[in-house]
Amino acid sequence: MHCMSSLEPNSFAERKSIEQVEEGYELAPKFDAHGLIPVVCTDFASGELLMHGYMNEEALRKTIETGEAHYYSRSRKVLWHKGATSGLVQKIKELRIDDDQDCVWIRVEVSLSGASCHVGYRSCFYRAVPVAENLGTSKKFSEIKLKYLEQEKTFDPKLVYGDAPNPTQL
Amino acid sequence: MHCMSSLEPNSFAERKSIEQVEEGYELAPKFDAHGLIPVVCTDFASGELLMHGYMNEEALRKTIETGEAHYYSRSRKVLWHKGATSGLVQKIKELRIDDDQDCVWIRVEVSLSGASCHVGYRSCFYRAVPVAENLGTSKKFSEIKLKYLEQEKTFDPKLVYGDAPNPTQL
Repeated sequence: MHCMSSLEPNSFAERKSIEQVEEGYELAPKFDAHGLIPVVCTDFASGELLMHGYMNEEALRKTIETGEAHYYSRSRKVLWHKGATSGLVQKIKELRIDDDQDCVWIRVEVSLSGASCHVGYRSCFYRAVPVAENLGTSKKFSEIKLKYLEQEKTFDPKLVYGDAPNPTQL
Repeated sequence: MHCMSSLEPNSFAERKSIEQVEEGYELAPKFDAHGLIPVVCTDFASGELLMHGYMNEEALRKTIETGEAHYYSRSRKVLWHKGATSGLVQKIKELRIDDDQDCVWIRVEVSLSGASCHVGYRSCFYRAVPVAENLGTSKKFSEIKLKYLEQEKTFDPKLVYGDAPNPTQL
């Protein structure tokens, strides 16, 4: 981890008014009942959505201080420096906060062809769901057939993650 | 609402195995303890992140059937056909599901210059947070100064929303 600055480990600004939160200059993020804020992560160059995750206060502080994405892993219940295991570090090119400051958008650069998905694809979002007139003959939602948008995996997850448990939960 | 098809109001596929969920062709979305799934909404043309919201089962079904984004409003606790009040309907150009099927990505076209934010900006994410070497002289997280990326609002929220209550919660 490369600490580029040495901010004191304190809190973000207090949320005082709608005007302050929506039209002010203070970073006053809202964490949910579990202490988490959702994070949208896109590839800086292509704009593609790479992943959706969560940060707790500590993860957001570390991300801001280091310029590398840190998340909170809900399955492992730990602070998660993305890339610590896989090498797929996400370098922050831009970090944005939304109007009511309850969501973070990070635009990142990733080594290894931008791969970010634990299944081995570039994006976690490698499948499309047909909608409206493209639903075809499906008569039930359970009959909808997903369409693969990436034909090949970018890397072999077994080689990268070894025997680490799969984070997907049913 | 334009129903383009007439799918029976049933459930999505049952989640049976990690392989089915991650590498199969069935749509088997995971809704959280509150019955919600997070939704990332980007502009189809620019790739810009417009908003982050949530769908419940009904909202996801309506979105798939109609090709127009439906959300579940957590503040108002109702199904929310985006644009019903503001006219800023989001036409789905592509809908994707992620690896473990607990997040939806919609790529949309919006009328009125792509405006999507209730504050009046094009994107909800109109402010950047400086990170790492760009933190400057900030010594506390509460001193971080946000940077506005949109200089002007796209529309006047008072004209579009009238006296509807502001959805932002402190």
